Amino acid sequence: MENQRPLILVSNDDGIISKGISELIKFLRPLGEIVVMAPEGPRSGTACSLTTNEPIHYRLVRKDVGLTAYKCSGTPVDCVKLAFSTVLSRKPDLVVGGINHGDNSATNVHYSGTMGVVIEGCLKGVPSIGFSLCSHEPDADFTACGPYVRDIVTKVLQHGLPALTCLNVNFPTDKELKGVRVCRQAKGQWTNEWENFAHRGDTSYYWLTGEFVDSDPQDESTDHWALANGYAAITPTTVDATAYALAEEMKSWF
Amino acid sequence: MENQRPLILVSNDDGIISKGISELIKFLRPLGEIVVMAPEGPRSGTACSLTTNEPIHYRLVRKDVGLTAYKCSGTPVDCVKLAFSTVLSRKPDLVVGGINHGDNSATNVHYSGTMGVVIEGCLKGVPSIGFSLCSHEPDADFTACGPYVRDIVTKVLQHGLPALTCLNVNFPTDKELKGVRVCRQAKGQWTNEWENFAHRGDTSYYWLTGEFVDSDPQDESTDHWALANGYAAITPTTVDATAYALAEEMKSWF
Repeated sequence: MENQRPLILVSNDDGIISKGISELIKFLRPLGEIVVMAPEGPRSGTACSLTTNEPIHYRLVRKDVGLTAYKCSGTPVDCVKLAFSTVLSRKPDLVVGGINHGDNSATNVHYSGTMGVVIEGCLKGVPSIGFSLCSHEPDADFTACGPYVRDIVTKVLQHGLPALTCLNVNFPTDKELKGVRVCRQAKGQWTNEWENFAHRGDTSYYWLTGEFVDSDPQDESTDHWALANGYAAITPTTVDATAYALAEEMKSWF
Repeated sequence: MENQRPLILVSNDDGIISKGISELIKFLRPLGEIVVMAPEGPRSGTACSLTTNEPIHYRLVRKDVGLTAYKCSGTPVDCVKLAFSTVLSRKPDLVVGGINHGDNSATNVHYSGTMGVVIEGCLKGVPSIGFSLCSHEPDADFTACGPYVRDIVTKVLQHGLPALTCLNVNFPTDKELKGVRVCRQAKGQWTNEWENFAHRGDTSYYWLTGEFVDSDPQDESTDHWALANGYAAITPTTVDATAYALAEEMKSWF
């Protein structure tokens, strides 16, 4: 049908009852028909992981005009894969992950379950966008993200995205944003990653924590800089992980 | 010390008792001092996932001349992060993941826990290599991989790898390999991904399965082609996921 509304698949990694996905759905409803397949509980830091050692299931939790929502026992990537095979009536026009409670800029793209949603959508040949807010608060204020989410989604629906590419969009917590920056992924390292405590005196246990140290914080081209300076950071992201220059160089090794 | 032997950190996603990691350790011992920090059980398909909702722990399981091994309750990435913070006496010269029981070529790089090990090593600034054999058999025959593993590791110890790059090496199951091909990541999609069965008649359960369909099986530059034609496939891989061409193009959107 020529005039049908865009079909938008939504998922996340914080789980279907998080505020971030509710806010995202609210922002997106005017733009299309929304189908949600989201994890039934938190799945932060699950990257592109798959459930391979047990079966998964899903259940309808809401049906309304223009909005159908399911919760799923699997990972964020499972949610996308399962939605494509079960509840979607056709290939969607867009896959959207978020809005994540927490920063997915820089090297966090590799750990993020929200970006798992997006990478999976992209691998399935659908334009895909992840949205994240740099706050872990369960009741974080997503108000400032709204107009940007709608603008970016509208532009992607209009322009499309090249094959094998998707968008990683991060918002600072500023109440008013200065605008949008198209960025590259900041380089850097996580440090002081473990909090160590003794348990019954015989074994040490370790909780993951840490601080990201940007290796070039003055570089205005990075997503990390944009966020630190009050801009929404759009990092165009590829799922073709080939290191082409190294591939050329290595041909002389063998 | 000038003349100390290379320090090599080994992990995997099949768990510390898998045959693949035992074979890898055997192949690597002549090349350096080996420290193993591997998951205590299977972690296939866990990608770069992190354990964020509970503490993790590790235990010494073997201490021998040139080889110290620990098992860890976390994910493959947790293993690498924890080893760097705890059991390694210095920054290692190499991080190696594998040998995985199963194919990690093409888009599997995104789902692979073995490549989680490698991506984490790379993000920590250490040359890192993942090895995988295209067989899921627990008693798979890794014999043909041995000389290639040693040759590739020796060359990487000698040349190093550029920042933000690592290697994804996959072996076909042929008893004799034709040699090495330096490749790019094959494009394609997983299809027929779910096996569906009813449980007590009221809920459907889904097991992940599927077939990878290469979108261009005749393309001799891909890892998928190399494996199908009896070569060891080395796919140089980047952890900088920025889609630079799209970034340039998108600057005109805003």
